[in-house]
Amino acid sequence: MARIVMKFGGTSVADMDRIKKVAARVKAEVDAGNEVAVVVSAMAGVTNQLIDLTRSAARLYDLREYDAVVSSGENVTAGLLALVLQDLGVAARSWQGWQIPVLTDASHGSARIEGIETEELARRLTSGEVAVVAGFQGLEPQRQRITTLGRGGSDTSAVALAAALQAERCDIFTDVDGVYTSDPRIVSRARKLDKITYEEMLEMASLGAKVLQTRSVEMAMKHGVRVQVRSSFEELPGTLVVDEDEIVEQAIVSGVTYSRDEAKITLRSVPDRPGVAASIFGPLAEAAINVDMIVQNISSKEKTTDLTFTVPRGDVARAIAVLEKHADSINHEALSAEEAVVKVSVIGVGMRSHAGVAQTMFSTLAEKGINIEVITTSEIKISVLIAEEYLELALRSLHSAYGLDKA
Amino acid sequence: MARIVMKFGGTSVADMDRIKKVAARVKAEVDAGNEVAVVVSAMAGVTNQLIDLTRSAARLYDLREYDAVVSSGENVTAGLLALVLQDLGVAARSWQGWQIPVLTDASHGSARIEGIETEELARRLTSGEVAVVAGFQGLEPQRQRITTLGRGGSDTSAVALAAALQAERCDIFTDVDGVYTSDPRIVSRARKLDKITYEEMLEMASLGAKVLQTRSVEMAMKHGVRVQVRSSFEELPGTLVVDEDEIVEQAIVSGVTYSRDEAKITLRSVPDRPGVAASIFGPLAEAAINVDMIVQNISSKEKTTDLTFTVPRGDVARAIAVLEKHADSINHEALSAEEAVVKVSVIGVGMRSHAGVAQTMFSTLAEKGINIEVITTSEIKISVLIAEEYLELALRSLHSAYGLDKA
Repeated sequence: MARIVMKFGGTSVADMDRIKKVAARVKAEVDAGNEVAVVVSAMAGVTNQLIDLTRSAARLYDLREYDAVVSSGENVTAGLLALVLQDLGVAARSWQGWQIPVLTDASHGSARIEGIETEELARRLTSGEVAVVAGFQGLEPQRQRITTLGRGGSDTSAVALAAALQAERCDIFTDVDGVYTSDPRIVSRARKLDKITYEEMLEMASLGAKVLQTRSVEMAMKHGVRVQVRSSFEELPGTLVVDEDEIVEQAIVSGVTYSRDEAKITLRSVPDRPGVAASIFGPLAEAAINVDMIVQNISSKEKTTDLTFTVPRGDVARAIAVLEKHADSINHEALSAEEAVVKVSVIGVGMRSHAGVAQTMFSTLAEKGINIEVITTSEIKISVLIAEEYLELALRSLHSAYGLDKA
Repeated sequence: MARIVMKFGGTSVADMDRIKKVAARVKAEVDAGNEVAVVVSAMAGVTNQLIDLTRSAARLYDLREYDAVVSSGENVTAGLLALVLQDLGVAARSWQGWQIPVLTDASHGSARIEGIETEELARRLTSGEVAVVAGFQGLEPQRQRITTLGRGGSDTSAVALAAALQAERCDIFTDVDGVYTSDPRIVSRARKLDKITYEEMLEMASLGAKVLQTRSVEMAMKHGVRVQVRSSFEELPGTLVVDEDEIVEQAIVSGVTYSRDEAKITLRSVPDRPGVAASIFGPLAEAAINVDMIVQNISSKEKTTDLTFTVPRGDVARAIAVLEKHADSINHEALSAEEAVVKVSVIGVGMRSHAGVAQTMFSTLAEKGINIEVITTSEIKISVLIAEEYLELALRSLHSAYGLDKA
């Protein structure tokens, strides 16, 4: 007997048929003697509809009202799942964020969970009642108004609840059946991982492999919650996200990922003097443009430098406008932008203790004639920027080179 | 300057365009210096969709979960209207039932309002902020779970709020522009009433002229709330529902209404002995079949009686089944049912002090050759059951006979 948290996203509860399938899975865990808390998202599409409505209501919207509107989708799903469970003979009740309560800070629209008062919830779990919790929502410190946790927030609701309830496991049911060594749509030999560390998962999430909300992984890591990513539609084990200690045979590299949301901007022949970086990145930061990779080279022209950096593709035009507005202080000779670039990364906690990981990456790409435009590294990740046309070739070559291909 | 409550139903907030029109009306009242609380329903169709979802979720549903699900539509409208008002420069915030709170009894699905804690709401109204209140919902006595007030419950929310806030007026905006002396689709000379008494409005509501929820009229009468029924779509004054004292020139008859939801059942030659009525109406009451008009005649056969009564049309088959099951104890000779009947009523507080009102009704119908099958009367109402084919003729003739035709 164990206490577990199960979380089902929007596609898993998209209609009544799917909600009934979810209920059957929950019942199976109850029948196995487990205490179960379920966290649900809004039915697929509902939250987007509600967001569109708030956008058409006002030009600048009050995030407190935004939260009051967009949180309603989860209330519907929670009530419906409780009803279906009751119909299957399973004791269940729905819980809205304010009813538990799930306490957050006052950052409406992207609130952070500060605590969950689980006393009554835990008492009812122990008595055999399933708690069906509306995800994505909480209550601000004055306990008057509803908050929401930002997109994908139900993952964080589930992990926070698992931490507060000291659950043995937090299963995140989604439309993929686990975390893969690479994108199976591109790398046909990608394998599903049985286990992955929190750190690796964090790097994957931040690189656009959107299986889990980044914040939920941070929270799981902080509280040591064992998270399992698994399929809503199949009865297979998924991928366990756990502490490094739990992984006995750690591969050096766990995954090869990529991000297409990259564009490269190059400023040529910028005078090479102290403060030049600030003159460029200061104005971009003020415009809330997120600069990712940066590389500075010696220019062909004396006493100048060439600066290359990446921004999200949607921000290229804005970034160029900002830079041109500050052209006098930057004093560059030329500006060029390139959108047909991608970032490819290899991730693995094993690289902390193994040398040569970067060399394998560089030589593999060189062998295929792929030019590396920018490189950045962290303790457990190496990322390179390459021309987009080489993406598939690069992913497959690296996947093989690091021994990740399935048999 | 006055404090007013404005209530907008589902068709008045059916889409963003209409919500914006509602906001403009609210702003006009604010600009006129009034303190305004607005009560809103869910967008047209939303509550029915939610009810359908709960029905497809479970065969017998837990009304607490039903309430959790169906109350969500009002939260969306309240948040959206607050946003649109803010966009127009009007200070506004939304209030869900549990936030005020609107306290009800624990009768989930059809709860009664027991009190509203308006201290904070009133403080904010005084400071110039518009309160946008989600109608139809409340909080049960333990303050844990959401309740709903039953269909049309937003009318009651509005009247209860007007009573608690001691508002000068409660305007109910709807898709008709007021209360008419008869159904204008049938009686082309029907007039809009400027004023009507609570008692008359109650009789009209219970007769199927569904302008206001019956319970909201009872509450307005009890607390002396001046209710105005008016159009969401036009800028005209509507009909004021007020105390009898406020109506200076009271017509003897205020309206001629009808109900098609009637069916007549006749039991012939029932033994005329004490307890016979109980043997018939007891089993019907147990089956929750609502018997309305009853008439008992001397039968053509000695020591027996003929009994005729009406039930809602949808209950005829069930009523016959119940009566046949108890045929031995009732001991009737024959049973017949007739669905092509309607109830026509004249309503007016003036008939308390005027004789001859019933006589006018009977002679008017007789002149047109319309046979009266059953008669019932109350202090301010006379109802007759007639063949459905005479409905339009009867309504128009009575409307003229009581001097209600417009010039």
